[in-house]
Amino acid sequence: MNKTYRRVALASYLDGLPRAEDFEIVEETAPEPAEGEFLVRNVYASIDPGTRSRLSQGQSYIPPLKLGETVGAFNIGRVEASRNDKFQDGDLVACAFGWTELGLSNGKGFMSKIIDNGLPISAWIGVLGVPGLTSYFGLKRVGEISAGKTVIVTSAAGMVGATAAQIAKALDCRVIGIAGGPVKCAWLKDELGLDAAIDYKATDDLAALIKRTCPDGVDILFDNVGNASVDMILPLMNLNGRIVISGQISHYNQREGDIHGIRNTRAFITHRVRMQGLVVFDDIRDFPEAQAELAGWLLNGQIKYREKIYDGIEQAPQAFREIFEGKDFGRHLVRLLPDPSV
Amino acid sequence: MNKTYRRVALASYLDGLPRAEDFEIVEETAPEPAEGEFLVRNVYASIDPGTRSRLSQGQSYIPPLKLGETVGAFNIGRVEASRNDKFQDGDLVACAFGWTELGLSNGKGFMSKIIDNGLPISAWIGVLGVPGLTSYFGLKRVGEISAGKTVIVTSAAGMVGATAAQIAKALDCRVIGIAGGPVKCAWLKDELGLDAAIDYKATDDLAALIKRTCPDGVDILFDNVGNASVDMILPLMNLNGRIVISGQISHYNQREGDIHGIRNTRAFITHRVRMQGLVVFDDIRDFPEAQAELAGWLLNGQIKYREKIYDGIEQAPQAFREIFEGKDFGRHLVRLLPDPSV
Repeated sequence: MNKTYRRVALASYLDGLPRAEDFEIVEETAPEPAEGEFLVRNVYASIDPGTRSRLSQGQSYIPPLKLGETVGAFNIGRVEASRNDKFQDGDLVACAFGWTELGLSNGKGFMSKIIDNGLPISAWIGVLGVPGLTSYFGLKRVGEISAGKTVIVTSAAGMVGATAAQIAKALDCRVIGIAGGPVKCAWLKDELGLDAAIDYKATDDLAALIKRTCPDGVDILFDNVGNASVDMILPLMNLNGRIVISGQISHYNQREGDIHGIRNTRAFITHRVRMQGLVVFDDIRDFPEAQAELAGWLLNGQIKYREKIYDGIEQAPQAFREIFEGKDFGRHLVRLLPDPSV
Repeated sequence: MNKTYRRVALASYLDGLPRAEDFEIVEETAPEPAEGEFLVRNVYASIDPGTRSRLSQGQSYIPPLKLGETVGAFNIGRVEASRNDKFQDGDLVACAFGWTELGLSNGKGFMSKIIDNGLPISAWIGVLGVPGLTSYFGLKRVGEISAGKTVIVTSAAGMVGATAAQIAKALDCRVIGIAGGPVKCAWLKDELGLDAAIDYKATDDLAALIKRTCPDGVDILFDNVGNASVDMILPLMNLNGRIVISGQISHYNQREGDIHGIRNTRAFITHRVRMQGLVVFDDIRDFPEAQAELAGWLLNGQIKYREKIYDGIEQAPQAFREIFEGKDFGRHLVRLLPDPSV
């Protein structure tokens, strides 16, 4: 057993895109679990755009991380020393410890025990974890999805967007994905089988292109981008249309004053549009059922995903920056130990 | 029986506030009802801010009125000649004919027969009509109101706002009304018994004043004003808070580019806020039940209202302009014949 571990701490508050010097690698002595606690040696740490919101000061709602604290993330790990009845040494678990090689918990941050369902364990912080569950409950509970609807997904090549798009396809909807660049759009159309993929970088009039692609209007907008895309699509919303606010990736690196304002709110009255956000933990009691349905779609090929793996905790800041630069796509993960499932 | 009647037609499309020359008084020969039709001599025509949206070109959703058409409104009238089995000469009815002394219908535009419930007949196009029903279904169906909630109502001295505020009080909520000027605020607080009335004209920092007035946050925002007020109150919304988009009076005379954009949408995720609009006719099957409950509150004094009556159809344009100038408040009506109920 390794007596030390490394974690990535916030060194300074971010202003715009994350930079290497905003983070520092800290080496610590491994703690001993007290009664009721268990120690987890992490195999993976996730790289999530939503993490960005706690790395700046001056946001209104969630207190920012303190300087020196570990940056938040989800992990897959193996229990290494347990003094908690519910966990045995060797158990594989999904937790939220952050960008760290080691996690200590009394139950806090624990998400699920990993069941061997034939899928790689990384799926438990991907399609079976917070991103996929956000897609699932966003469409099912907030979007009240049903067969035959027209569904638009923004940032559709990201993990949340791509999963949402494929869930909507599996539920017999017409699905349009919006993403940046021909590679992502080809993947959405050819690999994932969406009905249409719109490359927002390849048009001068995105609104008109979306309108032409959705001649019967839009029933559900599943938005990961933010106010500008909501504002653009609002005039296309059908009667009783639903806008699911899943994420706001375009806002995370913006100063508050620079954020686009939604003007086309007239549709809320004329078309009885409903807009609602979600935090997936509100649905925690229904996670096992959702994970079983998602696993079924993964195993039968109706849901696919891409991963980009970085090796070593020291790669986390760079991997984090790259998700905002949009160069690559799919779930970004940092691998800290060899994956026993692949 | 009068052989002619007058109506107010749209003479030119509006740009900004309504002007006298945008309208014209047209004298017409009274039509004869065909089989299945009935003729109504109007006693009242309503003056509604929402009418404004069809008097300009270039709006996205609802086609504008054609030049020469009668401006839309609700009416109370008496059936004068019926060739429709469901209506007898002398029946008092609520219809949507517009700014006109006479209406002809085959059933279209008919809203309700007026039951003698001890209230003045004008209530049927006020608290018991579209304004009051908008307040009722906005709070009950969209806002999912329940006792103990903190409810903010904007444009609270208007018919819709004042009715919403009093319904919320009747349902044991803490209610804060926002209105312009000391007279309206005194009426809200002293006459209607709201918990607080905020004069937006008397403060340099409305957001801070609202925040101080709502130390426990806001559960329901019932908005009649538009994006600027929604944006200001969004950061105060409690977990699972609801924003009811009832009207957008501040937008009606604005050019689209001048409309405020909602920026503070982060609360949709962090606080799971839901925003939804309504058009009251979606609830038409439940009108009788709602009208009975509203009539009960009117008769026992839990709901009060103010009316400002103008005499003569030719007064309609001026009355219309005055509701946007905010000089007076309460329901604006044009009286066309003596009211048999008062």
